[in-house]
Amino acid sequence: MAANILRGNYICRIVKVTTSLSRCSSFTRTLTTCTEKNGIRTITLDNVKKRNALSLDMLESVKANLTRDINSTSLRVIIVSANGPVFSAGHDLKELKDNDAEYQRRVFDTCSDVMDIIQSIPVPVIAEVNGLATAAGCQLMASCDLAVVSESSTFATPGVSVGLFCSTPGVAVARSVPRKVALNMLFTGHPITAQEALAHGLVSKVVPAESLHTEVMKIAERICETSRPVVAVGKRFFYQQIRLSREDAYREGSKVMVDNLQLSDTKEGLQAFVGKRKPVWKHSDD
Amino acid sequence: MAANILRGNYICRIVKVTTSLSRCSSFTRTLTTCTEKNGIRTITLDNVKKRNALSLDMLESVKANLTRDINSTSLRVIIVSANGPVFSAGHDLKELKDNDAEYQRRVFDTCSDVMDIIQSIPVPVIAEVNGLATAAGCQLMASCDLAVVSESSTFATPGVSVGLFCSTPGVAVARSVPRKVALNMLFTGHPITAQEALAHGLVSKVVPAESLHTEVMKIAERICETSRPVVAVGKRFFYQQIRLSREDAYREGSKVMVDNLQLSDTKEGLQAFVGKRKPVWKHSDD
Amino acid sequence: MAANILRGNYICRIVKVTTSLSRCSSFTRTLTTCTEKNGIRTITLDNVKKRNALSLDMLESVKANLTRDINSTSLRVIIVSANGPVFSAGHDLKELKDNDAEYQRRVFDTCSDVMDIIQSIPVPVIAEVNGLATAAGCQLMASCDLAVVSESSTFATPGVSVGLFCSTPGVAVARSVPRKVALNMLFTGHPITAQEALAHGLVSKVVPAESLHTEVMKIAERICETSRPVVAVGKRFFYQQIRLSREDAYREGSKVMVDNLQLSDTKEGLQAFVGKRKPVWKHSDD
Repeated sequence: MAANILRGNYICRIVKVTTSLSRCSSFTRTLTTCTEKNGIRTITLDNVKKRNALSLDMLESVKANLTRDINSTSLRVIIVSANGPVFSAGHDLKELKDNDAEYQRRVFDTCSDVMDIIQSIPVPVIAEVNGLATAAGCQLMASCDLAVVSESSTFATPGVSVGLFCSTPGVAVARSVPRKVALNMLFTGHPITAQEALAHGLVSKVVPAESLHTEVMKIAERICETSRPVVAVGKRFFYQQIRLSREDAYREGSKVMVDNLQLSDTKEGLQAFVGKRKPVWKHSDD
Repeated sequence: MAANILRGNYICRIVKVTTSLSRCSSFTRTLTTCTEKNGIRTITLDNVKKRNALSLDMLESVKANLTRDINSTSLRVIIVSANGPVFSAGHDLKELKDNDAEYQRRVFDTCSDVMDIIQSIPVPVIAEVNGLATAAGCQLMASCDLAVVSESSTFATPGVSVGLFCSTPGVAVARSVPRKVALNMLFTGHPITAQEALAHGLVSKVVPAESLHTEVMKIAERICETSRPVVAVGKRFFYQQIRLSREDAYREGSKVMVDNLQLSDTKEGLQAFVGKRKPVWKHSDD
Repeated sequence: MAANILRGNYICRIVKVTTSLSRCSSFTRTLTTCTEKNGIRTITLDNVKKRNALSLDMLESVKANLTRDINSTSLRVIIVSANGPVFSAGHDLKELKDNDAEYQRRVFDTCSDVMDIIQSIPVPVIAEVNGLATAAGCQLMASCDLAVVSESSTFATPGVSVGLFCSTPGVAVARSVPRKVALNMLFTGHPITAQEALAHGLVSKVVPAESLHTEVMKIAERICETSRPVVAVGKRFFYQQIRLSREDAYREGSKVMVDNLQLSDTKEGLQAFVGKRKPVWKHSDD
């Protein structure tokens, strides 16, 4: 199947994830759309009216789409995108206000789950942002492995303005940008521009809005040219080592490199390199 | 009282902190001035002749001004500023040279105390820098939550030139800028410009000297528009979470968000948000 | 001897490190050259045909040159440079491919040793890069205390392309640049420019190729103007404190500052400072 992908025989499916908004309304509707083609899954936040608020249902929808068939070797990369001018305005403040502490707790736990999952799954996750990403919406973007954004996009953690400090968004933001940049965003709530976000490491790339999707697809397709188990090994170790001391990171890293070399795809890769030809990946874990 | 602030009934006091420079001279003089108005306390280093050296007495004066009435709900933000062309040239080298190890130890412990206090107190601390900040003076600025500086300000850790490596300033600098930037400053002692400091995250904002105070006041006044206990919750968690693993940070963060939501100011904030009106904060911890 | 250096009586030696490439070929050849003059040791990667690949022998040659006579007070700074258009292309993929896991393990362990040694030895290490630094070559540069590079130099971690994810290079890169910058390099393998590397903290300075060596020498000579034991204290503590909590860093830092003040060179430095004259260092640990 992986070979098929490389040969251009596309696997395409469209999945609509439907969740019951039991606490907010009595009818059922779609909060995200999810498509998968050619190894690239695209999860699109699709609740434009609510500025793609990360309600509990929205978070569960994203979570389901991130984890579904995650071990399928045909899945190579995930894009998190959004419809409308706002990527996501963060938590649904009305939902938080109208529910008790137990429910609120579920919202934040689910939100943290989503952020953890993004970094724990074996395929890279790219945020495609065209517009405003605030509070937990900014957290979602910051938690993705990569983030490509349009020039006019802006980013903020303005919770302090409504009395709910962006403490959990700050976890992701502070792991991306220098401390004073994070604190300025958190204390003032003022937005930063795409260029500032790029300069400080909050995003990977800034491009004109009209070429945003093309640029995201270029990176996604680039990832599809590489071996899934190799990327999986690398991603897992990356997030493992950043929390270790340098010595422990290298001790663990030597093992990871040796293990990587035993993968059949790696043997193929090195053979191809020496033979000056393109590798043909199997994407299997052996 | 807090409501008074919001209504424009200013609370204004001028406090002169006088400490005895027992080891340096026989007379008593002022090392810092401290004013408080409208929730904004301004601590001004005021020993221009000694380039605002962080002598033991200066450090104790700053410490006293940072901690005094710190739990008063009328205090909302602290500005650390300086008179003269040098924000601070760091430790008083003559004082260090002329005293024994026990005294030296007291100087560094008190200095570390000041840096810890800046990040531990429940209100944001903004450095307002117009000129040179070197060694422990650079450390003081780097330790503040935010730093707004004039375009011609420069920053250095030149202790190596006199044989006293800027090890403790390096603790603050290395937590603000990339490693190679910090090491270049520490090994060469060469200053970096305000723009370089901004690019690398050592300062929050660079502005023309003539608008420096106005810009600092804008941020301070912006912070005064928010709720003191909400800011306190956010600041405390920010410095707590940056030393935790991502998982622990989120586990703790969920609790912090739920607790934040139980604050009466937060309930008011969300109510105001939904009602599309300005919130009226009580600034009380309930 | 140290005084001699200061007076301009140069100590000059040329050392050729010859290692046996037993597993690759039957003859013996030079992989690095090493010169030392005026307190400045220069280790030059010199296997242009193999793009200065970090084979086991190359790594052992670098290691030997980094550690030899490391406690000699006449040694003040080390430059790691390279001949040819490629600083280093990283591990020797053919060597890794043609050897068993035990040998591969030795390669990575030796590589990690080299990176640890760079940061553990008591003198600053400056990378002088003119050209391409990829994979473990990028790791080598990132691991140096400082890195001065020419404008046209580029940096990449492209292992994913051949099926060997740059996991260990990522340890060094992720400790230098923001997470999203590192992940973009690791997942895509795409190079970044010298200016991007500077903006994100991967290098210390970018200069025109024609002035590269002059600029590196300026920094090296600047370091030679300072006291060796003072620099040693500062370098050791820097790498110690970045892994500690702020409180522990300051607790340890106060001790380090007081100890620093007891060095005879520091007493001389402060005496000279007060007397407005140049210090005369002894470079001894007393």
